[in-house]
Amino acid sequence: MKVLVIAGSLRTASFNRKLAKLAAAHLREKGHEVDELDLRQVEMPIYDGDLESASGLPDGAKAFRARIAAAQAIFLASPEYNNGVPGGMKNAIDWASRGADQPLKGKVIALGGASPGAYGTTRALSAWRMIFRLVEAFVIPPELALPLASKAFDEHGAFVEDRPKKQLGNLLDELVRVASALSSAS
Amino acid sequence: MKVLVIAGSLRTASFNRKLAKLAAAHLREKGHEVDELDLRQVEMPIYDGDLESASGLPDGAKAFRARIAAAQAIFLASPEYNNGVPGGMKNAIDWASRGADQPLKGKVIALGGASPGAYGTTRALSAWRMIFRLVEAFVIPPELALPLASKAFDEHGAFVEDRPKKQLGNLLDELVRVASALSSAS
Amino acid sequence: MKVLVIAGSLRTASFNRKLAKLAAAHLREKGHEVDELDLRQVEMPIYDGDLESASGLPDGAKAFRARIAAAQAIFLASPEYNNGVPGGMKNAIDWASRGADQPLKGKVIALGGASPGAYGTTRALSAWRMIFRLVEAFVIPPELALPLASKAFDEHGAFVEDRPKKQLGNLLDELVRVASALSSAS
Amino acid sequence: MKVLVIAGSLRTASFNRKLAKLAAAHLREKGHEVDELDLRQVEMPIYDGDLESASGLPDGAKAFRARIAAAQAIFLASPEYNNGVPGGMKNAIDWASRGADQPLKGKVIALGGASPGAYGTTRALSAWRMIFRLVEAFVIPPELALPLASKAFDEHGAFVEDRPKKQLGNLLDELVRVASALSSAS
Repeated sequence: MKVLVIAGSLRTASFNRKLAKLAAAHLREKGHEVDELDLRQVEMPIYDGDLESASGLPDGAKAFRARIAAAQAIFLASPEYNNGVPGGMKNAIDWASRGADQPLKGKVIALGGASPGAYGTTRALSAWRMIFRLVEAFVIPPELALPLASKAFDEHGAFVEDRPKKQLGNLLDELVRVASALSSAS
Repeated sequence: MKVLVIAGSLRTASFNRKLAKLAAAHLREKGHEVDELDLRQVEMPIYDGDLESASGLPDGAKAFRARIAAAQAIFLASPEYNNGVPGGMKNAIDWASRGADQPLKGKVIALGGASPGAYGTTRALSAWRMIFRLVEAFVIPPELALPLASKAFDEHGAFVEDRPKKQLGNLLDELVRVASALSSAS
Repeated sequence: MKVLVIAGSLRTASFNRKLAKLAAAHLREKGHEVDELDLRQVEMPIYDGDLESASGLPDGAKAFRARIAAAQAIFLASPEYNNGVPGGMKNAIDWASRGADQPLKGKVIALGGASPGAYGTTRALSAWRMIFRLVEAFVIPPELALPLASKAFDEHGAFVEDRPKKQLGNLLDELVRVASALSSAS
Repeated sequence: MKVLVIAGSLRTASFNRKLAKLAAAHLREKGHEVDELDLRQVEMPIYDGDLESASGLPDGAKAFRARIAAAQAIFLASPEYNNGVPGGMKNAIDWASRGADQPLKGKVIALGGASPGAYGTTRALSAWRMIFRLVEAFVIPPELALPLASKAFDEHGAFVEDRPKKQLGNLLDELVRVASALSSAS
């Protein structure tokens, strides 16, 4: 199965890039094809309906849509900014959702997030669920919201403890199971 | 009182620009000073922690913060994109919230929104409440979520019906009442 | 397929009982077995951990769990009380979720709701999504939040307009499709 | 000032009863009058519109409303059940909100919660914010969501660490400040 893995933060040393890396590694170990998406690869302006009317989707949005369309499932590692989703990542979804053949429809998604604070992005992940529902993507029930992230990764980017490693593995295995079940049924 | 009125959409013909215009007019009639903010005036890149570390806040974010700081209260007319807040407007808040003296703290906010659909941005306004709470702004309980917006405004941008006009007026009067009460008490 | 249809309101003339009736009728027409659950049939006290420790689950909760367990999919027609889920229906879920073999795990759910107001229970349905996620149930992305419900049903309880009838039918067909796909894959 | 302190759980050994006790103690130390409400004192049936039509509000709901009406501010210590508000506590609010002179309107509220899990009731508190907004109560922005509660209290019910003690004190002082500012202004 082809899985798109997205790190929802631009910062190079972001905890969510680390989480995305570990997710990609687990999926590859299990024999899946992984497309690792860095938001810098699909740079796009702030969504503007006038711009869309004048010149259609910007190139970054087109590229983002194509990579979504090519995958059967998505893992998003999202930071939480101010109790909500990161504006930049949401902006990418806003562009991607425009047009009739929007590629998120029917896509199966698993959510993760890591934050230095106590609640581990749990509120951003809840906000993502509402958003992805509207574009008719299926977010699977479990998620990984990792608190106190500054102590969670070692210097090589691996998890210090076994528990999140197992949780991430289970989450991704369930993602693949659900995506596989839904695609074979449609 | 000085009130910052923000239209959360970039599109020129946006319903939320109309709503912001009507809010500004009501506030001026009541003798308040209004600063009408168009997001195009405070253009800024997607939030990026590396960029912030290297060169601090971009000029657009500085200008946005200054205009927030100069106001006693805020009215935000926000569209709803995909069941959530518009990524671009959220990105502006993400930048504005950076740094120790973030200007949203203690600010009193009223929320409105207009959409062509059935639910009138009510879910975006709920998401905004969670976000503004975290930056310690006070969002007042009432809000104006205007459904079926394509029939709500006449060709001069006025409300076709009396009801939303009264609701908007009441909402703004309550905004001023609360902002005034809280500022005199601090 | 066996589908549990729940009306989340106790009131006899509730719009959500009407919605549940119409859902049950559609499912039967499509050849499915339907269990129509009236919350009065599974009366239970307010959840109380001391009561649970002393005497386990009350009979109403046991009966509710058994009916959940016996179904492959669930349609819930929920009213919205004060911007959230009805306390009584939530109380039933709180009891049902207790214990190791909680029957909501893996269950596929579709959500509907009807209200006399402008927003049609959309905020209650969002709250239900967060709740069902935690008990590892799979709520499908589409939902039916029917505003202005006092004009939506005729004197026989049928929809006055075609549009909600089609929406409800599509929602239930999708429920069955997803439940069927996920059960055959596990 | 008279403050109503509510423990949102029925269980005798509940963490939220402990939190409510500590809140009451802080408020008394600061010279305020405290009404400590145990939900067992205001027992009421599940909300049922037919029951309301036939016999009005049950006695428990009337008593609950009277105690809300007599207070200037409220502190609610709420558990989180299944990612949401406890059904029983929500049921009490559903009854209290019925009728024209509903006593929550304009009331100032602070939210706290303690849970044994990692996220400390933060999602239940978000759900409460949406609910209290609709009844036009004013929930102050800060809140205390205390994770890992089984290690947070000593055998006398005091906080083991200083940090939550300070956070609770600050939260309650802010509650009083805001309630005082808003009441003197109206």
